[in-house]
Amino acid sequence: MAKKIGPQFIVHPKFVLKETEASTKPLSSGDKEKDRANVQRLSGLIGVQQQMLYAGHKHKVLVVLQGMDTSGKDGTVNDVFAAVNPQGIRISNFKGPTAIELAHDYLWRVHAQVPVAGEIAVFNRSHYEDVLITRVHDWIDDKECQRRYRQINDFERMLWETGTVVLKFFLHISKAEQKSRLQSRIDDPNKHWKFDPQDLAERKFWDAYQTRYQEVLRATSTLHAPWYVVPADSKTHRNLVVANVVLETLQKLKLKFPDPKPELKNLKFD
Amino acid sequence: MAKKIGPQFIVHPKFVLKETEASTKPLSSGDKEKDRANVQRLSGLIGVQQQMLYAGHKHKVLVVLQGMDTSGKDGTVNDVFAAVNPQGIRISNFKGPTAIELAHDYLWRVHAQVPVAGEIAVFNRSHYEDVLITRVHDWIDDKECQRRYRQINDFERMLWETGTVVLKFFLHISKAEQKSRLQSRIDDPNKHWKFDPQDLAERKFWDAYQTRYQEVLRATSTLHAPWYVVPADSKTHRNLVVANVVLETLQKLKLKFPDPKPELKNLKFD
Repeated sequence: MAKKIGPQFIVHPKFVLKETEASTKPLSSGDKEKDRANVQRLSGLIGVQQQMLYAGHKHKVLVVLQGMDTSGKDGTVNDVFAAVNPQGIRISNFKGPTAIELAHDYLWRVHAQVPVAGEIAVFNRSHYEDVLITRVHDWIDDKECQRRYRQINDFERMLWETGTVVLKFFLHISKAEQKSRLQSRIDDPNKHWKFDPQDLAERKFWDAYQTRYQEVLRATSTLHAPWYVVPADSKTHRNLVVANVVLETLQKLKLKFPDPKPELKNLKFD
Repeated sequence: MAKKIGPQFIVHPKFVLKETEASTKPLSSGDKEKDRANVQRLSGLIGVQQQMLYAGHKHKVLVVLQGMDTSGKDGTVNDVFAAVNPQGIRISNFKGPTAIELAHDYLWRVHAQVPVAGEIAVFNRSHYEDVLITRVHDWIDDKECQRRYRQINDFERMLWETGTVVLKFFLHISKAEQKSRLQSRIDDPNKHWKFDPQDLAERKFWDAYQTRYQEVLRATSTLHAPWYVVPADSKTHRNLVVANVVLETLQKLKLKFPDPKPELKNLKFD
């Protein structure tokens, strides 16, 4: 396999979140059609890896997707995992917590949805909302937030130690790109269902979110559960990064189909 | 309130598990009938505390019961929580894990059953089986066991930090007392349903279990989730200890009914 693509996107402790990087395309060939074909090819390879993951029933894979509204979490699921057998993948959407969820610790609902052996689980939003929107709006103070970073790191380490590969992607878009995407949701009647006036209210807190994201990414990017920052103003480039990292990670597991059974060769039956 | 009864039973880091202590009765008045009446009285007071816990919907209480076969886990639930409204208490039995449970990390099934706000949850056996039976039979090695101690401590600390009071009881019986209880399950046809031949097989590992229990109790008795060792050869004494500790713990929460609403005083309705 060629040089690893993923590491350049991993968050380190002194990482700075720069708005200008949202529109960069380090993985692009310069030709959009070629890039799209590449995403399709990678998606197909992920599908093959997933078949072996499912057959082996040993490893578990958790993919966490975070990002500002319109950053493309839904699109990433659709494009990167297009070729995966739906039987081996499970997507969990974490919206505002329900009454029963609020009556538990904030990790309760996410722990319930972690992958089983042989499965890829994707979190569309996650427990990271509990240190983002909650902190931006001062529903929790800094002390509680720091405490949650530790709890989250402990939790993810336990997942890793019990056989789960944890991959976290921050889909990084610029404020201008969000504006254009929100506008298109307003202009296109078929996208009205995706438009939530609340998104405009949250957009007012753009800067606060960026500050918080930088802190969260720094505090919770660990060896066993790294954060990847994905330049995502271009949807194709976003897919390229996520697909490459997912594929590289699966390949690192050296998955293979369980050993053939020689005794099956001459098995006779009616 | 008088001097605290609980602290004398708490496990400290150099704690030694002594078989001879299983039959001690430090809380007994010497009069069995009087002790039984006392358990009933304590159970009633726990019931009142639980009403306030339920009305306030703020705190959560988790009671973990561990002990050798026949140590009286079922009996403790029945006697100590006799006066609690079933709506505010939930008992979870953790037997051998199912296929779907085994496909997850070992904390998955216990996290799913932690108490909600206003509730007492009782674990009849628990995640501690994953460092006991598993280690006694060498299904996991020492390194993995030490790792699980840390994971368990992290998990219980998170529960405590998110508003759950965690109380853990080791119901301590002697080998002779277990023999007598197993024999009575064999002799009494109405108790046959409780007899499992597997219990005799596990009894052969008595010493190994005692060694493991001592290590587990030492490694996981923390300020936020202490272990209480309960002399339990006497069922009444066992109940006295558990009831006292549960009641003291609830009283320490200073529970009260939510403030009365003055506007209700003159409320008229048809």
